[in-house]
Order: sequence, then structure tokens, then C-alpha cells
Amino acid sequence: MRKSVTAVALLTLAVGAGASAWAQMKPEDAIKYRQSAMFLVGQNFGPLAAMAQGKIPYDKDAAIKYAEIVAFVSKLPLRGFQPGTDMGGDTKAKPEIWENMDDFKAKLEKMQQETAKLPETAGDFNTLKAQVGETGKACKACHDKYRNK
Amino acid sequence: MRKSVTAVALLTLAVGAGASAWAQMKPEDAIKYRQSAMFLVGQNFGPLAAMAQGKIPYDKDAAIKYAEIVAFVSKLPLRGFQPGTDMGGDTKAKPEIWENMDDFKAKLEKMQQETAKLPETAGDFNTLKAQVGETGKACKACHDKYRNK
Repeated sequence: MRKSVTAVALLTLAVGAGASAWAQMKPEDAIKYRQSAMFLVGQNFGPLAAMAQGKIPYDKDAAIKYAEIVAFVSKLPLRGFQPGTDMGGDTKAKPEIWENMDDFKAKLEKMQQETAKLPETAGDFNTLKAQVGETGKACKACHDKYRNK
Repeated sequence: MRKSVTAVALLTLAVGAGASAWAQMKPEDAIKYRQSAMFLVGQNFGPLAAMAQGKIPYDKDAAIKYAEIVAFVSKLPLRGFQPGTDMGGDTKAKPEIWENMDDFKAKLEKMQQETAKLPETAGDFNTLKAQVGETGKACKACHDKYRNK
């Protein structure tokens, strides 16, 4: 458990650093990239939220697996928000993202900070429940401002 | 670098273990799940292959980042190949997958074994080039047999 948490932290640093070095993608690929990452995050955060809400039984091993995936994959969407991708594909992303990129990045980073805590909290129902709540707030803050319904 | 390799190995174990505990997804979500994961793998393996082939300059830091993403995300698609998802969405997956699940899993695991070596080889052009070749072979073996063109 402890080693695994350290592992996520190390990878978080490695993956998050130097985003400017990413190869540019075609706009339609960039849109698909961020949507793919967000979909994977959602499909793994969903069961964690369901456990926290008592909709499905709490399963420690499964919770840790979901949490590690959310923590890692939530680092990926930013690359897909490259300049010029407010159009070029079917996207719910609001153009305001590119007008307020610093604020958008800050909100994404806040979300990543919260997802990074999921693996270390997932091993106990009460700590998981609290962290799912904090993570959900961070998701919502960005979606409310920057995603069309 | 060494710590990072260990990190990937640990996560690989954590994420890969006990796949039977995954929550079932709706068939269309399962199909989208595996496709999303494969798309992310492709978008990160692509630049590694391009570096290996000399199509873009070798960039050590970028290569390691791409490699770590490929190593992690390549663990995810299997969950999406749940029973009953040979139909139910737009998929290139051949029905033979579910008739030969043990062979399919073995091919996926071979691919995962190869992608797991990418982070530790990405720091040097020649070792990266060799490992990109081995990984590409593992991708191709499964695509040739189990994916429609």
C-alpha cells in the first residue's frame, strides 16, 4: 500500500512535468485524447462514488485499483486542451478555457491534487468517502465553469 | 529513473491483479472504455515509434513520459472486453476474441510485458529503439488476429 502510494506520486511528477514538450496532435485527435482520458477517469471514479454513497458494497481491493487508475489517468487530459481545439470536433469544452487557460489549469491541477489522494485513502471506507467528496467538488468546479451541458 | 521503473512495476501489479472484481459496464461503455484506452496508448506510443524511426528527434524526457503512460494505460483495455461486448457498439474487435479468451489474454499480457519495459529503456535511444520494435511486434500479433481492419 505505502509503496503503491509512493509509486503514484512519482509517476504523477514524471507525467505532469514539462507538458510543453508534448508532440502536437491533430485537433480532432487532441479532442478525442482529452475525452478518452476523461471517460476512463469517469468509469473508475464512478464505482468509487457509488461505494462512498453506499450504492454498491465497499470493496477495499477494488477501491484501491480504481483509485490508482483515477490518480494516474487524471494527469492526461490537459495535453488534449492544446491551442486551437475549442473547435475541430464534437466537444463540450467551452471556448472560455482558452481565454482563461491559467485558471483552467489551476482547476485541473486542484482536481489532480485531490485524485492523487485517492489511493492512500481508498483502503478505508471513511477516508475514501471523505476524499471522494473532495474530489467530486474539484471535478464539479471545473465542469460548472468550463463544460457545456 | 530507477525509482520510476519500480513505480511502474508496482502499479502494473496493482492494476492488473484481480480483474474479475471490476464492476460490469454497459456494453457500449465497455467498448468505449477499451477504445479510449487503446487510443491513449496509440497517441503515446506513436511519438516513441516516430523517435525510434528517426521521424522526429529523440527527446529523452519526452520519451520517458510517453513510455510511462503507455506502460500504465496498456493495462486498462482488458476490462472493456467483458462478455457480451462483441456487439453493442461500433467495434473492430473480432468475435474470435471471446471464443479464444485465454489466447487473447495471453497476447494482451505479452503486450503489457513489453510496454512495461518501455520506461526503463526510454532513457537511451538505442535501447528505446529495440524495445519499441519488440512492443510493436506484440501489438501487431494481437491486432492481426483479433482486430478487423
